[in-house]
Amino acid sequence: MNSSATASTNAGSAGRIEAFDAVDLIHAKRDRGELSTPQIDWLIDAYTRGYVGDEQMAAMTMAIFLNGMTRREIRDLTMAMIDSGERMSFEGLGKPTTDKHSTGGVGDKITLPLMPLVAVFGVAVPQLSGRGLGHTGGTLDKLESIPGWRANLTNEEMIAQLRDVGGVICAAGSGLAPADGKLYALRDITGTVESIPLIASSIMSKKIAEGTKALVLDVKFGSGAFLKNIEQSRELARTMVALGQDAGVATSALLTNMNVPLGLAIGNANEVRESVEVLAGGGPADIVELTITLAREMLALAGKTDVDVEAALTDGRAMDKWRQAIRAQGGDPDAALPVATDTHTVYAAQDGILVQQDALPFGIAAWRLGAGRARKGDPVQHSAGVDLHAKPGDRVAKGQPLFTLSADEPARFPRALESVEGAWRIGDPGEPVLTGGPLIAERISAAD
Amino acid sequence: MNSSATASTNAGSAGRIEAFDAVDLIHAKRDRGELSTPQIDWLIDAYTRGYVGDEQMAAMTMAIFLNGMTRREIRDLTMAMIDSGERMSFEGLGKPTTDKHSTGGVGDKITLPLMPLVAVFGVAVPQLSGRGLGHTGGTLDKLESIPGWRANLTNEEMIAQLRDVGGVICAAGSGLAPADGKLYALRDITGTVESIPLIASSIMSKKIAEGTKALVLDVKFGSGAFLKNIEQSRELARTMVALGQDAGVATSALLTNMNVPLGLAIGNANEVRESVEVLAGGGPADIVELTITLAREMLALAGKTDVDVEAALTDGRAMDKWRQAIRAQGGDPDAALPVATDTHTVYAAQDGILVQQDALPFGIAAWRLGAGRARKGDPVQHSAGVDLHAKPGDRVAKGQPLFTLSADEPARFPRALESVEGAWRIGDPGEPVLTGGPLIAERISAAD
Repeated sequence: MNSSATASTNAGSAGRIEAFDAVDLIHAKRDRGELSTPQIDWLIDAYTRGYVGDEQMAAMTMAIFLNGMTRREIRDLTMAMIDSGERMSFEGLGKPTTDKHSTGGVGDKITLPLMPLVAVFGVAVPQLSGRGLGHTGGTLDKLESIPGWRANLTNEEMIAQLRDVGGVICAAGSGLAPADGKLYALRDITGTVESIPLIASSIMSKKIAEGTKALVLDVKFGSGAFLKNIEQSRELARTMVALGQDAGVATSALLTNMNVPLGLAIGNANEVRESVEVLAGGGPADIVELTITLAREMLALAGKTDVDVEAALTDGRAMDKWRQAIRAQGGDPDAALPVATDTHTVYAAQDGILVQQDALPFGIAAWRLGAGRARKGDPVQHSAGVDLHAKPGDRVAKGQPLFTLSADEPARFPRALESVEGAWRIGDPGEPVLTGGPLIAERISAAD
Repeated sequence: MNSSATASTNAGSAGRIEAFDAVDLIHAKRDRGELSTPQIDWLIDAYTRGYVGDEQMAAMTMAIFLNGMTRREIRDLTMAMIDSGERMSFEGLGKPTTDKHSTGGVGDKITLPLMPLVAVFGVAVPQLSGRGLGHTGGTLDKLESIPGWRANLTNEEMIAQLRDVGGVICAAGSGLAPADGKLYALRDITGTVESIPLIASSIMSKKIAEGTKALVLDVKFGSGAFLKNIEQSRELARTMVALGQDAGVATSALLTNMNVPLGLAIGNANEVRESVEVLAGGGPADIVELTITLAREMLALAGKTDVDVEAALTDGRAMDKWRQAIRAQGGDPDAALPVATDTHTVYAAQDGILVQQDALPFGIAAWRLGAGRARKGDPVQHSAGVDLHAKPGDRVAKGQPLFTLSADEPARFPRALESVEGAWRIGDPGEPVLTGGPLIAERISAAD
């Protein structure tokens, strides 16, 4: 009962000469053992080159999911994934860099107002973003609602925009941590997404390779997040903050509540509209609060503590940065955004208080309306989504609109309505409102 | 974070219409849930057809390895693997059928004398066998030492031989439980071989599909077996006996000690020689004891309890059956067997008692000499192997040969010698002899 997939890595530029047997490594992790640094280096290198097959890596990731990894193993895995590709550097810019990463939620468009708001203060914001999969939306999908805007920039274009505008939101090139790209696609189809060692190394390998010097993590918990409870989110945040510190990136994290949709818009074009409202000094209170808190944190990590963040939202400076950044990427900030051909509105059947509005079902509704994709590479419908007309705690009157679904294909409404059945409720005044606590629950820094 | 590989099985002859998502099933088992009968049916059917990929099945088997399966799930898995292919039937033979399966060991050639010995008593023995991989040998590899003998028979040839000779040892056709063949190859390279639910369903799906009405399982434990401790072997035996009973196959199991090599020969041609000695009424005591015990058990399950098994070994009837069966498959029972070009003998350095002879290192030595294969499809060298000249408990004199290694390539000796270093020891009279207990430790029947 011996086995296959022994391979030597070539002892070229990396100088690595160790060779291992993939099955021995799987056995070690399966039997609750610890993988050594050379073993992890070999595994990731061999997987990236195709010596270790997807089926072997799938068994390994399930063993990691079920048996865990030590902090040392997670750090080694992160570094091995960084070493699988190129590392960017913004040293030549002559100004500090700071970035934000969110673990994903429902209605989470914070990157859109946040990038220009932070860039106002002379800190470069290299916001490499992704596309959505399943019920969590993707920042690039939202921005592609804007006519002409393009997500793919060369490294030179990106650096030029950071110099000239001060901030950029664009697609991460495939050269950053390619092992992570391959591994994430595998985890997605083999049921090993929700693993703290694998999530932490996936996120941090890309962010460290990107070359930012400061990083704020928005780690979500609750129904609309993929980690449901705060304990798991805290563990993930602590793991990522430690990884950042070890790699010389000033890192902190906020644990934020994702039991209720963020803001009033869930989709793509409607989330851009809401972001522009925030940049105009308005917008829903929760979006404004989270944007300002994250901006302060990003600026503080980059050494800017004595700044008036709110003022830049109300005096138009953040809006100016937004318009510059959209134009720099070919977009027209004044163009009309796409509107759906059909809408379906749900009205309150009674007077009372909106006591519940569960994030996950509303995220699934938007996804089913066409705002998200079921498979990587599918197109999204920019006009599709959900617009909420009331938030938990709001008083509602019988006949008042509660939310509106938008889609270009009316056949999508029934399944979207099905997904929100039981997800919201009008109660009597005095009944407890189910939000799962405050929006910003905790701050985790390297000192914790 | 949604996922792929949803597929409908066609609702054709099998009449199945359920469709599941592979990732949902992996999540269920990963989170210690139980898979339903329709889910297991779908999974195995979809995997056999290629709708569920190797990487998804690898994650599933690791989740099964670590989280286990209930008896009901194991039964469903076994039946689903049977349903992936054809089922044979020996109903038309007009005589009872009985079979034996060993979980594999070092020097385990018992099938060779056992098949003709049982066939003497008018019970058909359809012994579908396999090839070796790693340190455990394969019955077909051993028999192929005999010039002209062929392992591959058509179903018609097999049934004709069962009618005319009464027993046959041949290769299992690829039509029996093809899902198991595919799954076993996957488990071998993904580190999930040593799992009781997966071993039990793998063995029993082939044996039930083969169509035998009685089955004796030789479940080994100890250093030379792949399950090292007797508790695991007992659990495996009980699981398989229950699966057999549920499928209408009279099944029992012996737990046998594999801490010491079986007999004196480990290899291929030398194991055939030793088997012929047993059929001639001689041979090592352990081989004779296990052969007779298994023969009695096989015959009892087939309804023959009042038979003198020993007599058939000493009066030449078993030898006659052997010669008929070898000839029926093109072999010449009188032909000279291959002999190696080189031998290397190790001698006792002192007088004393052989107190230790560890099965696994001697199995690995034979494998390294060329008797076994590292990868499926590799050739084996029929003349290579190890011949022991003393067994644990034997008194040895200084200068007496202890064991001889044989190979066609002398370059193989050093690594083979390395593997047996420290695996045997000469002690003083009165010192305990390390055999790990009696040869036959327990009997497990459906009543247990």
